[in-house]
Amino acid sequence: MTTGRSDSRVPDDGMGPQPAKGERALIARIGAQLRRTAGTRAEVPFGDDMAAVGRGDLLWTTDMLMDGVDFDSHLHSWAEIGRKAMAVNLSDCAAMGVRPISALCAVALENRLSMDDAEQLLVGAMTLGQRHGCPITGGDTNSWDHPTVVSITVAGLADPGTHPILRSGARPGDQIFVTGKLGGSILGRHLQFEPLVDLGLRLNGEFRVRAMIDISDGLLVDLGHIIDESGCGAEIREDLLQRVIHEDALKLAAKSGRRSIDHALSDGEDFELIVVLPRDVAIGEEWAARLLPIGVMTAGSTIQMKHENGDVMVLEQRGWEHFHG
Amino acid sequence: MTTGRSDSRVPDDGMGPQPAKGERALIARIGAQLRRTAGTRAEVPFGDDMAAVGRGDLLWTTDMLMDGVDFDSHLHSWAEIGRKAMAVNLSDCAAMGVRPISALCAVALENRLSMDDAEQLLVGAMTLGQRHGCPITGGDTNSWDHPTVVSITVAGLADPGTHPILRSGARPGDQIFVTGKLGGSILGRHLQFEPLVDLGLRLNGEFRVRAMIDISDGLLVDLGHIIDESGCGAEIREDLLQRVIHEDALKLAAKSGRRSIDHALSDGEDFELIVVLPRDVAIGEEWAARLLPIGVMTAGSTIQMKHENGDVMVLEQRGWEHFHG
Repeated sequence: MTTGRSDSRVPDDGMGPQPAKGERALIARIGAQLRRTAGTRAEVPFGDDMAAVGRGDLLWTTDMLMDGVDFDSHLHSWAEIGRKAMAVNLSDCAAMGVRPISALCAVALENRLSMDDAEQLLVGAMTLGQRHGCPITGGDTNSWDHPTVVSITVAGLADPGTHPILRSGARPGDQIFVTGKLGGSILGRHLQFEPLVDLGLRLNGEFRVRAMIDISDGLLVDLGHIIDESGCGAEIREDLLQRVIHEDALKLAAKSGRRSIDHALSDGEDFELIVVLPRDVAIGEEWAARLLPIGVMTAGSTIQMKHENGDVMVLEQRGWEHFHG
Repeated sequence: MTTGRSDSRVPDDGMGPQPAKGERALIARIGAQLRRTAGTRAEVPFGDDMAAVGRGDLLWTTDMLMDGVDFDSHLHSWAEIGRKAMAVNLSDCAAMGVRPISALCAVALENRLSMDDAEQLLVGAMTLGQRHGCPITGGDTNSWDHPTVVSITVAGLADPGTHPILRSGARPGDQIFVTGKLGGSILGRHLQFEPLVDLGLRLNGEFRVRAMIDISDGLLVDLGHIIDESGCGAEIREDLLQRVIHEDALKLAAKSGRRSIDHALSDGEDFELIVVLPRDVAIGEEWAARLLPIGVMTAGSTIQMKHENGDVMVLEQRGWEHFHG
């Protein structure tokens, strides 16, 4: 059960997809019950980046961040941590192309925190929310002897004349873009990224966007959500992917011994958007710097990589997946 | 910052009110900023049981429960724990007299949990929500090596022709009722209580309710929220309070060495409602068993106890308060 993703930093066991484990397995077990009772509007399927609140147009999303998993309070300031807790939710709004309108913030603060720390955490979240038109209207403040947990919920609305962009609208032949370079976010961007709320709204307003998602769990995993929900496949062109490798992926590759292209494919928390447009849409000059093509949707059911020599291979959907119970 | 309460089981230090500490102190520090940025509709002041989502009529609330604080996974089943996490949010809807419409559920599951445990937790929450017309429409599932945290957010709407009932509408001379007997909930009711959603809706529909709140932090603390927000005082009659002492308070008093009346005044998590009605309202026969009078609102600024011999003393607002940072 998710409003789009498990924003997790717990690595999988390196064995590739684990269909019997993780959050998705849990959803698989109780998803049918949840879907049946949810009675969610057909326009917003269960498990997208945001969920319908009721019968109206309002959507909402929630993300829980835990110290030592999603942030490290020994390395990061409480203002940065609060900011990130807000940012990951705003990124879900970006992924749906909707405008955030307000937030709730629930916290379990580790008892060692000072009042100043707690204030910084809340002000960090509040300040970023405010910049995106998303005030904190309430919450729940608790304390305990374990690491700090921050859970923010954000509500959002599509602008007049637009609809939320789902994961499920991609069709074979559609063009796949990303909105920025990928990989190595752990070197800092995972904490300091600016959620692409305005970009998501502009894309929703200007294009017939077929499907959109934010890259939280890694390009392969999140593109995997689009192919799963849309019932088609995807082919990534290696030559195009080479152009969207972030310099942080190069830096990280030098340390990790893995290829930079693998970091671009698998690293989580880039928080760029995957944008799927119909094949006949020409994005034009003004968007060329912001919509970087990486491939096309296919009639298959897997994500393939097309190498420059013409070889095609199926990519494993590796990435981050929570709850290995 | 809260949508009504810190649902905490961490006892205070026994020194009575601690204005410089706790959640309320944190709110006092950043509340002005939050209020200013929130731009919440004047009809629902910041810090009530639920908050306005936006400019429409929708309200929302969030509560975070932590293992070892709000529940004990060594004593309670995961289904009971999930149920409680939903119940405390539904109780906030009851306190506002609004109808819950849907929920989000975010969890950080301790890694030792099995898939069955996780499923039981979610099904426990889902089942209670469903019974109150409040399906789970999404969430966020995570895992980590620390105790389990469950954070549920619930949205609610006032029935047509009614408005949410605030804490701030009480006036001197108003009658104060509670909807059930109080104290000793720790013996079991804190986990198994049925949220008073239907009762809250009926009260909202049938009476000009001035103010309402659910008793989560204890009668004194929660009545204290009403006097603070309403700008008046309250006088509890000892003879009336004697009649609303729960049998669990008597049992607990036999062990704790404290008086049963003190348990009724201070114990948290009864989840009965405090209901304030205008002085001229006669509740009638049919409500006599459900609306138990305990006293009246006064022109003062404190909660006083009027003893049977005529003596009046000010009661300290003792109870449970989170975050002693």
